[in-house]
Amino acid sequence: MFHKQIIITGAGLVGSLLAIYLRRKGYSVSIYERRGDMRKEAVEAGRSINLALSDRGIKALREVGIADAVLEIAIPMHGRHLHQPDGTHAFQPYGKEGQYINSVSRRELNCTLMDLAEREGVVLNFGHACTGVDWKTNTISFAAQGSAETRQFDLLFGADGAYSATRLAHMLQHQKFEYQQHYIDCGYKELSIPAGPGGSFLLEKNALHIWPRGNYMLIALPNLDGTFTGTLFFPFEGETSFEKLTTKEAVTDFFARTFPDVVPLVPDLEDQFFRNPTASLVTVKCFPWVREDKFSLIGDAAHAIVPFFGQGMNAGFEDCSVLAGLVEQHGEDWGTILQQFQELRKPDADAIADLAVNNFTEMRSRTADPKFLLQKKIEAWLHEQHPDQWIPAYSQVTFSPQIRYSEALRNMLRQEAIMQEVMQEPGIESNWQKEEVAARIISMKSQAT
Amino acid sequence: MFHKQIIITGAGLVGSLLAIYLRRKGYSVSIYERRGDMRKEAVEAGRSINLALSDRGIKALREVGIADAVLEIAIPMHGRHLHQPDGTHAFQPYGKEGQYINSVSRRELNCTLMDLAEREGVVLNFGHACTGVDWKTNTISFAAQGSAETRQFDLLFGADGAYSATRLAHMLQHQKFEYQQHYIDCGYKELSIPAGPGGSFLLEKNALHIWPRGNYMLIALPNLDGTFTGTLFFPFEGETSFEKLTTKEAVTDFFARTFPDVVPLVPDLEDQFFRNPTASLVTVKCFPWVREDKFSLIGDAAHAIVPFFGQGMNAGFEDCSVLAGLVEQHGEDWGTILQQFQELRKPDADAIADLAVNNFTEMRSRTADPKFLLQKKIEAWLHEQHPDQWIPAYSQVTFSPQIRYSEALRNMLRQEAIMQEVMQEPGIESNWQKEEVAARIISMKSQAT
Repeated sequence: MFHKQIIITGAGLVGSLLAIYLRRKGYSVSIYERRGDMRKEAVEAGRSINLALSDRGIKALREVGIADAVLEIAIPMHGRHLHQPDGTHAFQPYGKEGQYINSVSRRELNCTLMDLAEREGVVLNFGHACTGVDWKTNTISFAAQGSAETRQFDLLFGADGAYSATRLAHMLQHQKFEYQQHYIDCGYKELSIPAGPGGSFLLEKNALHIWPRGNYMLIALPNLDGTFTGTLFFPFEGETSFEKLTTKEAVTDFFARTFPDVVPLVPDLEDQFFRNPTASLVTVKCFPWVREDKFSLIGDAAHAIVPFFGQGMNAGFEDCSVLAGLVEQHGEDWGTILQQFQELRKPDADAIADLAVNNFTEMRSRTADPKFLLQKKIEAWLHEQHPDQWIPAYSQVTFSPQIRYSEALRNMLRQEAIMQEVMQEPGIESNWQKEEVAARIISMKSQAT
Repeated sequence: MFHKQIIITGAGLVGSLLAIYLRRKGYSVSIYERRGDMRKEAVEAGRSINLALSDRGIKALREVGIADAVLEIAIPMHGRHLHQPDGTHAFQPYGKEGQYINSVSRRELNCTLMDLAEREGVVLNFGHACTGVDWKTNTISFAAQGSAETRQFDLLFGADGAYSATRLAHMLQHQKFEYQQHYIDCGYKELSIPAGPGGSFLLEKNALHIWPRGNYMLIALPNLDGTFTGTLFFPFEGETSFEKLTTKEAVTDFFARTFPDVVPLVPDLEDQFFRNPTASLVTVKCFPWVREDKFSLIGDAAHAIVPFFGQGMNAGFEDCSVLAGLVEQHGEDWGTILQQFQELRKPDADAIADLAVNNFTEMRSRTADPKFLLQKKIEAWLHEQHPDQWIPAYSQVTFSPQIRYSEALRNMLRQEAIMQEVMQEPGIESNWQKEEVAARIISMKSQAT
């Protein structure tokens, strides 16, 4: 028993965490990573979006005993700090008092997870790009420094991200593989905001900053050293788009008109704009994720999503937690474990993919609308008055790991329909805090259930 | 001028026809086909669905001068001959008097097109499986009898079908490639119905036979030799499905209960059932189809669709016709030709893909409903009374090549909504032929436009 050789492709966040979980169950685990070791080498710069670690991810980290260590290198963000088009500011809390999400550097977290995996006895191999899988002989091939290598596995996990090579090997040899990849019409570009004197924060530290501008937006998340990682989400093509901003003058002019308060914060704005790559954002949905008792996709490789709900990593970590729970339940019966894993997780992965696309609209456009901000205020108040009967969708996804993503999506649609009605009521702006209003909304909800 | 070397992957229907068109424009054209030469070798048997050649395909064949020759080996089908669950029969004409579709053997048509292509000077290479494309050097690699070959091209067309290897090479090296493949939950199995004494037809010859049974159906198309190519479209899984029919007894029993009139026609039914493979049905949508001035997908490789509207080949032939029209217009400006080709054809390809899926529901289920048959009768009558103001959706797609698929889809949605309303009217069963009813429907249509 427990003599299975497990190979994981990808030493990213999910691959590293999964390795720790499986090692703890007693398996021999090797990771093969296409890139070099980011703990020793410079990584691709200029295309990171900071991570927002929240309760689902924390739950998984807690299960392997490193939640506290990770939270020490994280910065709490209690809500959205909105930089409105008219120059005013607004603050929208993420949840109740004491609820927050955590800005974490991808690199720091990934290095921490790799270190821990190695300490647990996981073997990490870098510079190994998967070139194919032979599903009959259970062997995986790699290109490693120009030469071809082959490894045998009993169990293979594809944790190799949105552009997964193992998924491709799976897809190309599958009879009826459901697959879709869809790129949203916006790309993104990192724009780093430096620290002030003595490592001070030039924007409010404990918030996620958003400059909502309709069909595009800028966001910024804090780092420990006082800098902010800014990201511009912006159309590739059209009137106002990357394809139009081709000169230094155009960039200067655009930022001065659209994000005037950002300009003094980023002295090398134009340099960064042209130096940093423009990256694209893809949603991948596929099925099945697994092959018999010997292969599963996991994390982004199974369900790449856009970053607008801050749930990509959290969903991947939750995958690991759910899988570990199934191992607890079914021991070495990997056929059952993998089958149940995909049955449980596929609807949740589809749901968070849709929620994430939906949240882009909310962030870039609706947060600039006073009526929308009022709606969120009413919902927060309802949640305080009736904590179990009204949980705002954001809170369900972010702070309620006991609610499945698929449930959260259904609840969101129901609650949003009710709130649309409520927001039409004459006088709602002034009388929303009345007891009877809350009572009526709660009763609409129970009728809709 | 006209010195471009054109390579086409795939010697199927679309690849062969495209080669003829391009050769006539003066280009050197080579085709590379993965399979052997079907004119000399046995082809995979037992998985063909007969083709229904209709006006869009005929238009293209006419443009290269072979429509009449092809129609000579075709059998006109004037409508659907419905074998109802209660044992009765119904006939539903496809269009007006004199309008029909044509049952053609895929093999015969493909051989005819290959012969013609060769006579025109196209070089056909068989047993060449595309293994990759280098988009920088414009070279395509093949595996041919165990050895690797490389060919240079100026212009490459991927006409290599639903599982296109050139599409994969395109996709894997594209920054933002939109892609989805979706399998319907039904597979299909060929079941051949032999000819009667002296090559006679045991079913009505000039019709497409359908046994509609709710979520599955059997169809049969006539061949010149008196046989019918039957195809069972049937769920893979579930209560009544391929996974349940695993024994000879189960098959015998199922056919006796469900298709009793078919049983005496197919003496070796059970043998065929277990000998013939169960094939799957995929829809592929992707974008972009083209790369600069040097590559385009075409036909199924660009837009694989399910067979239920009989438009897969017709759409592919129309692709060739549209492309040839653009060559007429833009000469050797292939950058413009390919760009306009995909802009023109992508919406039409998406539309016929959706129409085809929709028609599966119509064929397998609605054709068993008397109310639906009445609706079609009313629409046919409206079409006769007002030939320009009411063209049934089927006629728009099948007999009206001047109407784009995308237009036909929009018109269908509008007309179907009107007919849903009309069919609710009390007494419609008896008074539909009144002048005023027609006038009212036509006016609803003009208001909706």
